[in-house]
Amino acid sequence: MKILVVNVNTTASVTEAIAASARAVAAPGTEIVGLTPSFGAESVEGNLESYLAAVGVADAVARYPDPFDAVIQAGYGEHGREGLQEMLDVPVVDITEAAATTALYLGHRYSVVTTLDRTVPLISDRLLLAGLDRRCASVRASGLAVLELEQDPARAVAAIVEQAQRAVADDHAEVICLGCGGMAGLQEQVRAATGVPVVDGVPAAVTIAESLVRLGLTTSKVRTYAAPRSKRISGFPVGG
Amino acid sequence: MKILVVNVNTTASVTEAIAASARAVAAPGTEIVGLTPSFGAESVEGNLESYLAAVGVADAVARYPDPFDAVIQAGYGEHGREGLQEMLDVPVVDITEAAATTALYLGHRYSVVTTLDRTVPLISDRLLLAGLDRRCASVRASGLAVLELEQDPARAVAAIVEQAQRAVADDHAEVICLGCGGMAGLQEQVRAATGVPVVDGVPAAVTIAESLVRLGLTTSKVRTYAAPRSKRISGFPVGG
Amino acid sequence: MKILVVNVNTTASVTEAIAASARAVAAPGTEIVGLTPSFGAESVEGNLESYLAAVGVADAVARYPDPFDAVIQAGYGEHGREGLQEMLDVPVVDITEAAATTALYLGHRYSVVTTLDRTVPLISDRLLLAGLDRRCASVRASGLAVLELEQDPARAVAAIVEQAQRAVADDHAEVICLGCGGMAGLQEQVRAATGVPVVDGVPAAVTIAESLVRLGLTTSKVRTYAAPRSKRISGFPVGG
Amino acid sequence: MKILVVNVNTTASVTEAIAASARAVAAPGTEIVGLTPSFGAESVEGNLESYLAAVGVADAVARYPDPFDAVIQAGYGEHGREGLQEMLDVPVVDITEAAATTALYLGHRYSVVTTLDRTVPLISDRLLLAGLDRRCASVRASGLAVLELEQDPARAVAAIVEQAQRAVADDHAEVICLGCGGMAGLQEQVRAATGVPVVDGVPAAVTIAESLVRLGLTTSKVRTYAAPRSKRISGFPVGG
Amino acid sequence: MKILVVNVNTTASVTEAIAASARAVAAPGTEIVGLTPSFGAESVEGNLESYLAAVGVADAVARYPDPFDAVIQAGYGEHGREGLQEMLDVPVVDITEAAATTALYLGHRYSVVTTLDRTVPLISDRLLLAGLDRRCASVRASGLAVLELEQDPARAVAAIVEQAQRAVADDHAEVICLGCGGMAGLQEQVRAATGVPVVDGVPAAVTIAESLVRLGLTTSKVRTYAAPRSKRISGFPVGG
Amino acid sequence: MKILVVNVNTTASVTEAIAASARAVAAPGTEIVGLTPSFGAESVEGNLESYLAAVGVADAVARYPDPFDAVIQAGYGEHGREGLQEMLDVPVVDITEAAATTALYLGHRYSVVTTLDRTVPLISDRLLLAGLDRRCASVRASGLAVLELEQDPARAVAAIVEQAQRAVADDHAEVICLGCGGMAGLQEQVRAATGVPVVDGVPAAVTIAESLVRLGLTTSKVRTYAAPRSKRISGFPVGG
Repeated sequence: MKILVVNVNTTASVTEAIAASARAVAAPGTEIVGLTPSFGAESVEGNLESYLAAVGVADAVARYPDPFDAVIQAGYGEHGREGLQEMLDVPVVDITEAAATTALYLGHRYSVVTTLDRTVPLISDRLLLAGLDRRCASVRASGLAVLELEQDPARAVAAIVEQAQRAVADDHAEVICLGCGGMAGLQEQVRAATGVPVVDGVPAAVTIAESLVRLGLTTSKVRTYAAPRSKRISGFPVGG
Repeated sequence: MKILVVNVNTTASVTEAIAASARAVAAPGTEIVGLTPSFGAESVEGNLESYLAAVGVADAVARYPDPFDAVIQAGYGEHGREGLQEMLDVPVVDITEAAATTALYLGHRYSVVTTLDRTVPLISDRLLLAGLDRRCASVRASGLAVLELEQDPARAVAAIVEQAQRAVADDHAEVICLGCGGMAGLQEQVRAATGVPVVDGVPAAVTIAESLVRLGLTTSKVRTYAAPRSKRISGFPVGG
Repeated sequence: MKILVVNVNTTASVTEAIAASARAVAAPGTEIVGLTPSFGAESVEGNLESYLAAVGVADAVARYPDPFDAVIQAGYGEHGREGLQEMLDVPVVDITEAAATTALYLGHRYSVVTTLDRTVPLISDRLLLAGLDRRCASVRASGLAVLELEQDPARAVAAIVEQAQRAVADDHAEVICLGCGGMAGLQEQVRAATGVPVVDGVPAAVTIAESLVRLGLTTSKVRTYAAPRSKRISGFPVGG
Repeated sequence: MKILVVNVNTTASVTEAIAASARAVAAPGTEIVGLTPSFGAESVEGNLESYLAAVGVADAVARYPDPFDAVIQAGYGEHGREGLQEMLDVPVVDITEAAATTALYLGHRYSVVTTLDRTVPLISDRLLLAGLDRRCASVRASGLAVLELEQDPARAVAAIVEQAQRAVADDHAEVICLGCGGMAGLQEQVRAATGVPVVDGVPAAVTIAESLVRLGLTTSKVRTYAAPRSKRISGFPVGG
Repeated sequence: MKILVVNVNTTASVTEAIAASARAVAAPGTEIVGLTPSFGAESVEGNLESYLAAVGVADAVARYPDPFDAVIQAGYGEHGREGLQEMLDVPVVDITEAAATTALYLGHRYSVVTTLDRTVPLISDRLLLAGLDRRCASVRASGLAVLELEQDPARAVAAIVEQAQRAVADDHAEVICLGCGGMAGLQEQVRAATGVPVVDGVPAAVTIAESLVRLGLTTSKVRTYAAPRSKRISGFPVGG
Repeated sequence: MKILVVNVNTTASVTEAIAASARAVAAPGTEIVGLTPSFGAESVEGNLESYLAAVGVADAVARYPDPFDAVIQAGYGEHGREGLQEMLDVPVVDITEAAATTALYLGHRYSVVTTLDRTVPLISDRLLLAGLDRRCASVRASGLAVLELEQDPARAVAAIVEQAQRAVADDHAEVICLGCGGMAGLQEQVRAATGVPVVDGVPAAVTIAESLVRLGLTTSKVRTYAAPRSKRISGFPVGG
């Protein structure tokens, strides 16, 4: 099967890292295709950028020329997943939700450790909408920007570990979710330092997407995610 | 003061109706400017179209050349308000929330009567995010599409009144919110037929925007709605 | 239009301060009338006093001889608003709710800074009843009694600022509501010291009351706030 | 021990019926004293009347000359209990809450059947404040006014049974609470007709008040229900 | 009347202490019978042991040869109460819930102080299921194991008092519930040290069980707690 | 990898059907082992039987002699999952939760269609504990007992389809979960008749268990699910 893993920002090296992380866990026979939006922000750290990403991701998927079996939106706490579900007949998995539902199987409560403080409310909002907030102990910020994660992984690990340890000690989290698509690859180091399970949303989303395909399940089309009605739309897809 | 009232769809006649509705309630000295996105759907009735509208509205505001004092996003249950709040230093009011907070002053519970069944979850989600869901008795669909409201107002009133009456009788609503920017002007007819207060989001939003300006209050910039960080963004504003 | 602004305590100087705060924001043509209950506590800082105030406020309004267009109950976290809504055909606005709905437009979460610790649960309860609790980050006490605010404004500002800063730093509030009718006038000083929007309930309530009148909206009479049934009642209104 | 059972309305025959119901379940050695407010409504069926009752009940208790061990506020969904808790050092039990906590031991969910539709929101609000709402399946109105219950008990039973049966069938209630102090004595007839446990708040409150006294427990005075601060209060107690 | 008080663990001395605590508050004429499961853990401090206790308690009750009027399950935060309700026609009271509903009458919010940190989530979960969580300020662990309470009461009191004081100061609790059946007897010392009401679940449950019997109320059999259907069951009761 | 799929009842033919359903979706290389408790009820349809099943399932797993990689508890709405998590170091997946988290990816809200009305509250309670209740539109009963499903599959499909259609039309469900381990195999027929995605918990759980193993994730041992403390336990494992 072929799964599109779509980065929410326009930084190709982040797309590469995400795709590599996805490939590392993909089942034999699963092809991972990384897509980068053709417009938008080099890193998504706020609502305006996230709304632009919602359109950018939908655009990249709409213009992808070949068949595929599932789509993963690889941004943490971002807008846009519902639009993809309307547009497509194949399953759509958001990594924020993938990490959260995976964490539910591992402990009584989980925390998310993300990048900047300003992105905390976006993640909280998405978990609220997804109905996955009640067992979320906290969403904590490491203070690092998205692109800093890539530039200085050692510092990133240290900052994430510090917040993860506080989440366990103070917020009673028993599982940590890495709250940024760009944290792919840091999972094992954070786990080793904290002693609790650490969930990276990208590989979690890969197994969920594969599972939905294997189970023959896809988005319900009876109401919320019915295909858009036929009408005049200008400016989308944005074009190539 | 000058208030931008931004339609979420690209149908100029809807923008005109909304602006007229806003002007009808605006205080002396308030100038209402109606804006129409330069791209997007002719009517917004789903998530994909709504995400496109989020960018379309932000784009129209970003490219508006003159100073203004507040912005009203005139779409019911639509994405995008948070992005405007980051982008601007003046107050931003969404009509979904304006109708809801106004309704809270008028009765114990309120219901929303909207257009198509598929837009019900969008409105519910926005009320949930806004923390305005607990006193919402129901969100009900009239079954009419956005553009049908304009084409056949008598039928629209009848369909809205039917759902409003059910909301009062079955869901214990005491106030009705008109759940579509395109319902501007139907308020009095629905009130007469149902005997309960009927809130139209556009005029409600005008008074709230004016109030915020008069009170000298605007969006907090300490966290969620801080201005976007300086970074490389392509494709926005879209141009023109 | 004429708006009655009713103090909940019997201290006339507080009524004066509240009325002055209301007048400062009232639109041209709006007449503000301050009313003081003829019985009750000199300051309301608990449930027993608040229930007495509920009757005292209703009594003062019931005996007011002239027509009026709206009523503001100028007590934070107090009982009584629902009774006024039954008794009257004009809009009733409680400053606790006015501050809260105003704050919702300004940030992701708001906190209330009030007087004594014992009044915190009253405010929390009223926000819960009003369905405005979910985006309330915290209700914090400055430790000052109601009448101390008037006696030593500088100390009041310092105590409020300290709690407001903690609300922003520890509770993730982005907006502060001044949680006492007697804090009228401190808004600008608290804003300057904290850097976040500060909402004073009295002026917020004035703009909301004016807005409801301008929108032609008043309390729904179909159920909860229907006029009291005809029956034998003794002892109310209390006197003459 | 001596327990004051305070009616919320001024109809002495209702006080008598309530006191008789209390005495029927009281332990040997428990003296039940029925009190009637000296002012207020002959029946309490709304917020204004309920706020007046809050003061009337507090006044009746404040002027009661002899020692007592506990107080029961015998009104369903009424304001005022918190004020009594501040004023007194002995336990205070509200029958709305007494019926609800008793019902929790008897089934998965309970419903309340009350008098008029307009009192439903008052009861819902009190259950919400009490934190007893989640297992409440519904609050239903029989359509009978308080004083009609006394005038035509057979019709009252029929109307209550009809709503109780709907609560069981449609709302999945497994227990019924009689939602009016004036329903004292109808419990057995409603149980026989419905086959589910029926809780009358007055006897339930008697056993709870007795239990608290036997356990040596009374209201916590550290915060919410601390005694009122010393201050100038006029008009209370109302006098005699 | 006769009440069975069933310990959840197999340590007979704990059963004795619990039964003594129950007898100390029981009304004249109430006979307290302490039962110990014939299998299971010597102390119950986790889910596996608690599920075993659920069956052990049901087994002990099923094999009790004489008539009885009510059953108290004397374990804090344990599984099993619902099964007893199905099996029996007499009232069943769990001490976790008994302590909580009693606490609701005494203050605005209550906290539970229990034994080990690992039992906190069990208690939280039971309060959530019981619909008694909203006014629970916190569940705190003293760090002492169940059997340590008995071995070193002075240390137990000190550890419980420390957490109780933090609950009052930091979590705004106004009442403390002793969160372990084995804490019977420590109530007065903790109250003296903290100044707030302290609820011990066992005596609270005795008064509630007696009250239900006096009120002629027992478990609803219409749905959730209907008697088990006739079917082939092996291994239960476990035997003698 | 080897996954134990444990039936909650003692009917071996149900174990066979469940195991077959699991094998049908298992990845190449996954070995499915069906286990049947050695004691308990032939069908689990209530709390007492479910608590017995909790111990029966734990016993069957504890006595399984060979290594394994994950455990699936194949009962809908049953007690016991938390105990397995304490006892084991490998992932544990409950089919109630597996169906629910899978459904979250497929529609805005899901409903569960189960067997008897009396099991509805058990399922609701487990979804509440799991934090998966908010997007659950309803839990509906088909009226068929567990063993009737096997005896008359055509009648079972008809009864399930009827409730599923009501869930979609009346409760706004967009996805249906088959609420009984014994419904394995009916998925396709129900989907064909309703037009919405239908999730069977057993295959869903298989893919989730496989995913957790592939991701190298297992239960957090820092708090709630730490291994039981060393102590004297009698009667478990039950033997054999």
